[in-house]
Amino acid sequence: MGGVSTAERDRVPKQDRSRATRQRLLEAAVACLAEHGWAGSTVSVVAERAGVSRGAAQHHFPTREDLFTAAVEYVAEERSTALRALFPEGAAQDRRAVVTALVDLYTGPLFRAALHLWVAASNEEQLRPRVTELEARVGRESHRIAVELLGADESEPGVRETVQGLLDMARGLGLATLLTDDKARRERVVAQWASLLDDALGVTG
Amino acid sequence: MGGVSTAERDRVPKQDRSRATRQRLLEAAVACLAEHGWAGSTVSVVAERAGVSRGAAQHHFPTREDLFTAAVEYVAEERSTALRALFPEGAAQDRRAVVTALVDLYTGPLFRAALHLWVAASNEEQLRPRVTELEARVGRESHRIAVELLGADESEPGVRETVQGLLDMARGLGLATLLTDDKARRERVVAQWASLLDDALGVTG
Repeated sequence: MGGVSTAERDRVPKQDRSRATRQRLLEAAVACLAEHGWAGSTVSVVAERAGVSRGAAQHHFPTREDLFTAAVEYVAEERSTALRALFPEGAAQDRRAVVTALVDLYTGPLFRAALHLWVAASNEEQLRPRVTELEARVGRESHRIAVELLGADESEPGVRETVQGLLDMARGLGLATLLTDDKARRERVVAQWASLLDDALGVTG
Repeated sequence: MGGVSTAERDRVPKQDRSRATRQRLLEAAVACLAEHGWAGSTVSVVAERAGVSRGAAQHHFPTREDLFTAAVEYVAEERSTALRALFPEGAAQDRRAVVTALVDLYTGPLFRAALHLWVAASNEEQLRPRVTELEARVGRESHRIAVELLGADESEPGVRETVQGLLDMARGLGLATLLTDDKARRERVVAQWASLLDDALGVTG
């Protein structure tokens, strides 16, 4: 967005410029993956979209696999941070608000990009091990945040699986939005399952 | 599997042979989509896999889109039939068995093929409308079967959304198996949510 004059650029330390370039590339990669899928997403296409030279892009990310797994990881971290910021005091009184926020993590461009990456990884041996590892890491982090925000006590039998099933549901709802935007249906399902969760987990406090 | 002699072939009416060819093409298309994704799935590749000439394949399915949407629809119907056959008396006493069977619909090669088709459709304008329509139809049918087998009374408030959320969860569990086979985790989640469903839907009988 907007040009940066040479004078301005000179005031920004080199390390910060490098970090900003990296970030532009990661954001462009996610947008590209969400819009065009794996087949249409190359380092060149992303570099052009980010307004970065191909050489600079390859300096940051030597391979296509490096770029796209880093991109999904970066945005997953951004989303986790944003989710925690929504409920700064930890366990929320309002479980429906928490379930809504969790489900929102699985709709929108990040999930779409991640989905393209998963599907591509299922058929591409080069991509598969690192996407599997990334997916496991993101999954564990989402679970940790969900347990915390829902005020769930995992020492109680069944609670861990209740939370896992909820995140699976969120993922399934995300998948359903890939083709049709069924926001109204999604909100009704979320309301109902939030109330089932209240029965299953007890009242927070 | 195995060759068909000319003598045998002559005993089979033409219409049946045509139906058998169609079926071989559809099954090969699903296997191809699950293994190689949309990018690697063309009419030629499927025709070769099915042992059918390219011309015969195009007689049945003029376009690639025709072939693959028909394939996913065909297998979805096969799976629905198989699911109903598991519980011939309708509503089952054992909700856990029903939930397990429903979740099984979303793992395995059919779901994998459907997932490739959805993801491709999200970026391909030619494919999108018919895959969206197919997905809506398969979704309605799955919902109808789930309601019946779970013995759910949709006139009760929240019951419709409970069942929808369950199917979303099944879809999310299917997505999780795309990269890693987490059968043990899946079974624990299914057991727990089957018991939550018993609380939410009441006891069948």
